[in-house]
Amino acid sequence: MLRVAAQRTRQVVWTHHRGLATANSSRPFFPDEPTHPAMKTAVPGPQSKAILNRLNQYQDTRSVFFVADFEKSKGNYIVDADGNTMLDVFAQIASIPVGYNNPAFLALSKESAFQTALANRAALGVNPNKDWVDNVENAFMRVAPKGLDQVFTVMCGSCANENAFKTAFMYKAAKQRGEKEFTLDELSSCMNNQAPGSPDLSILSFSQAFHGRLFGSLTATASKAIHKVDIPAFNWPKAPFPLLKYPLADHQDHNQKVEQASLKEVERLIVEKARQQPVAAVVVEPIQSEGGDNHVDEVQTGVGGTGTFWAHEAWNLPESPDIVTFSKKFQAAGFFLNGRLRPTQPYRLYNTWMGDPVRAMQAATIINEIESKDLLNNVKQVGAYLQSQLPTLLNKNASVRGQGSFIAFDLETGAHRDKLLTDMRQRGVNVGGCGDRTVRLRPMLTFQKHHADIFLNTMEDALKLQK
Amino acid sequence: MLRVAAQRTRQVVWTHHRGLATANSSRPFFPDEPTHPAMKTAVPGPQSKAILNRLNQYQDTRSVFFVADFEKSKGNYIVDADGNTMLDVFAQIASIPVGYNNPAFLALSKESAFQTALANRAALGVNPNKDWVDNVENAFMRVAPKGLDQVFTVMCGSCANENAFKTAFMYKAAKQRGEKEFTLDELSSCMNNQAPGSPDLSILSFSQAFHGRLFGSLTATASKAIHKVDIPAFNWPKAPFPLLKYPLADHQDHNQKVEQASLKEVERLIVEKARQQPVAAVVVEPIQSEGGDNHVDEVQTGVGGTGTFWAHEAWNLPESPDIVTFSKKFQAAGFFLNGRLRPTQPYRLYNTWMGDPVRAMQAATIINEIESKDLLNNVKQVGAYLQSQLPTLLNKNASVRGQGSFIAFDLETGAHRDKLLTDMRQRGVNVGGCGDRTVRLRPMLTFQKHHADIFLNTMEDALKLQK
Repeated sequence: MLRVAAQRTRQVVWTHHRGLATANSSRPFFPDEPTHPAMKTAVPGPQSKAILNRLNQYQDTRSVFFVADFEKSKGNYIVDADGNTMLDVFAQIASIPVGYNNPAFLALSKESAFQTALANRAALGVNPNKDWVDNVENAFMRVAPKGLDQVFTVMCGSCANENAFKTAFMYKAAKQRGEKEFTLDELSSCMNNQAPGSPDLSILSFSQAFHGRLFGSLTATASKAIHKVDIPAFNWPKAPFPLLKYPLADHQDHNQKVEQASLKEVERLIVEKARQQPVAAVVVEPIQSEGGDNHVDEVQTGVGGTGTFWAHEAWNLPESPDIVTFSKKFQAAGFFLNGRLRPTQPYRLYNTWMGDPVRAMQAATIINEIESKDLLNNVKQVGAYLQSQLPTLLNKNASVRGQGSFIAFDLETGAHRDKLLTDMRQRGVNVGGCGDRTVRLRPMLTFQKHHADIFLNTMEDALKLQK
Repeated sequence: MLRVAAQRTRQVVWTHHRGLATANSSRPFFPDEPTHPAMKTAVPGPQSKAILNRLNQYQDTRSVFFVADFEKSKGNYIVDADGNTMLDVFAQIASIPVGYNNPAFLALSKESAFQTALANRAALGVNPNKDWVDNVENAFMRVAPKGLDQVFTVMCGSCANENAFKTAFMYKAAKQRGEKEFTLDELSSCMNNQAPGSPDLSILSFSQAFHGRLFGSLTATASKAIHKVDIPAFNWPKAPFPLLKYPLADHQDHNQKVEQASLKEVERLIVEKARQQPVAAVVVEPIQSEGGDNHVDEVQTGVGGTGTFWAHEAWNLPESPDIVTFSKKFQAAGFFLNGRLRPTQPYRLYNTWMGDPVRAMQAATIINEIESKDLLNNVKQVGAYLQSQLPTLLNKNASVRGQGSFIAFDLETGAHRDKLLTDMRQRGVNVGGCGDRTVRLRPMLTFQKHHADIFLNTMEDALKLQK
């Protein structure tokens, strides 16, 4: 039943066209990637379901959309275990940068330095390999945000944020004691988790923020109750996130008002808490807020998706942030920091692996791809195109918003949103949600105008099923 | 100067012999590994220093022993950037399982499934690859500790412990509310990091414990003040770790007394805190304590180093632990859990990558190596040999202790310990420390009797320099 419907839809989708492809955007980055989705079964299909039944014995599988066949996936298209070929606008939760089975990635896998790093995992704080400094330069310092000359690498985005918080706390505490030596009282009390050694400092974050799922990063998170409930948290404050209305030009008064209110509350919290529980850092996700201060979480927004390498680069900030964290699309995780935040004593930012040279080499390859294919320009062009077309399909309360191809919009309710995502997946376009009723586009950097047209046409069809 | 000294020493070291090698232990696992250390310069040598000078622009290098040349390293021997060949008894902080450039690891790198996983990093909670369930079975369920039928994978040992803590909290909170639905008050209060949604529950750990460096795992850690000072911590309790005297047989009265005192304090803390701040779990490192209860941290002790695959398997516990965490030598990180601890709702244990199929395939390869080379037996034999020989070299307060080749002993002071480690490294044997004045042996599972003899002879020579 669904199979027939999907095939019929496919005919409709690939015959109507939006605009004319420009010469630049129509030359595909992957000459051998599929030209359009091709659906054989409902999603998830019987093969996906059979595999998930097996996996469910050992792991919770309720969050899984479908089982992938990465060997057959290519460029912007993901193939699932049932042989369905889908345009992927979710890209492993925004973490695939330059396309499935990118030839540069496959070539890297065959290089001897890469295979050595794979077979011999370094404890980088004890025995870095002789080419680690080249990895650091080629993968990280080459794209270090302005003003930040240090980098610390770890294994995932939550760890990056937690270590960044620790760095801010160490810096703040050192300032508070006037850069003096630790007191004996500090050194003994911290062993019992008590002040003054374990001080009551805080990180200020924003409502609806997502900074991770470990104990410090989860305290700073406030996106969904189910992530937080039952888990002990620090008593750290939250400022209201300014809920802007879109298009921005039509709502200047409202937007200015909520932004001012948010900034005022940030100031109040910092001043009010200065005595009892000082704020060591303000942490901001660039795509939500322009109040960037001390610490910018670019785990999801970094590495080109917004049209600049780091999202905050588009803002022309009067001062650089002190810390910028990264993970996801960079494959390697960690943070850049200003040299004055480097801890005075060794072993304060430290762990066994301290990152992964394998992932650093991949990060360098990603930068090479971005440069050689001019992908930031591609993101800007395709993003502008999507942002111009989306409002024509959606009602005016959809609040289409974005930077580059890092785009989101709202549907009437969560149920409408979920139905749209499911209907689009059955038609071969894989998209994800966020928030309560938001659709988020997180395409790879190699997503081009012809992909955008498939996305828009498929969404147009799927929206008709909403009524 | 040092070069000459090292070369002269080498003559001495490789000519004296301890006992006779057995047929089994003398057949080398790596026919082409070096037969002995070979030193060309002091450690760190000029090449190491030059590279560290460059790296120090971007990262703190004060914790680095020397720069490795992993391409030239082989089996139990690490080669540094200056061409020094050292027997490695530290093994990347206990995280290299089956030897540098192990042929099975190198072969795995060339397999197509492995290369696919490398080039296409899955968000395992959304799109696991079709062979992920095979990875889970081959790498994890195959060695699941008795009683534990679930596994959750993450990216590092600290993340494994933090997610294990979260699992314990969710389980405890669900019990406290009688397995009912969340209340609206719980769901709203947690968004502001307040009770009842963010409950004041605790994890009980032990003095001198090390469970990681993120906010929850660092709260449970109490090994060194420098890891903890300035970082906000939860007000979680610590029980005294029983400081046993060795050899155990000579100190039965003392040891029984301190063990009883520790267990009594554990009980008191659990009972006393039951009302104000209930203990959700007790976390134990197997090599330190036999009070195993709820949650066992096998990040460092797991994967064969103690002669059983998991250290706690040697204890014949009357009940299985509920959670066992792993990382390091397994290359893959995560934890096993009892099925009743699996959260009722989805997305409560979740993150972008949720582990790494690449590292899971390596974990499966490690198990293959352990089985095909009978490495657990090797660890038992070599461990027994080392434990029998070490007391003859050390004074009787050295407290030689261990399980398998996971062995430690104390020197008079931290300065004595540090000097011994440095002197041994100059003679081509790389060893690490822990605690204030302890030497820890963390050889690979492929460490054989002939390696043990080189270690013992070198230590005998280096100890003479202590006077």
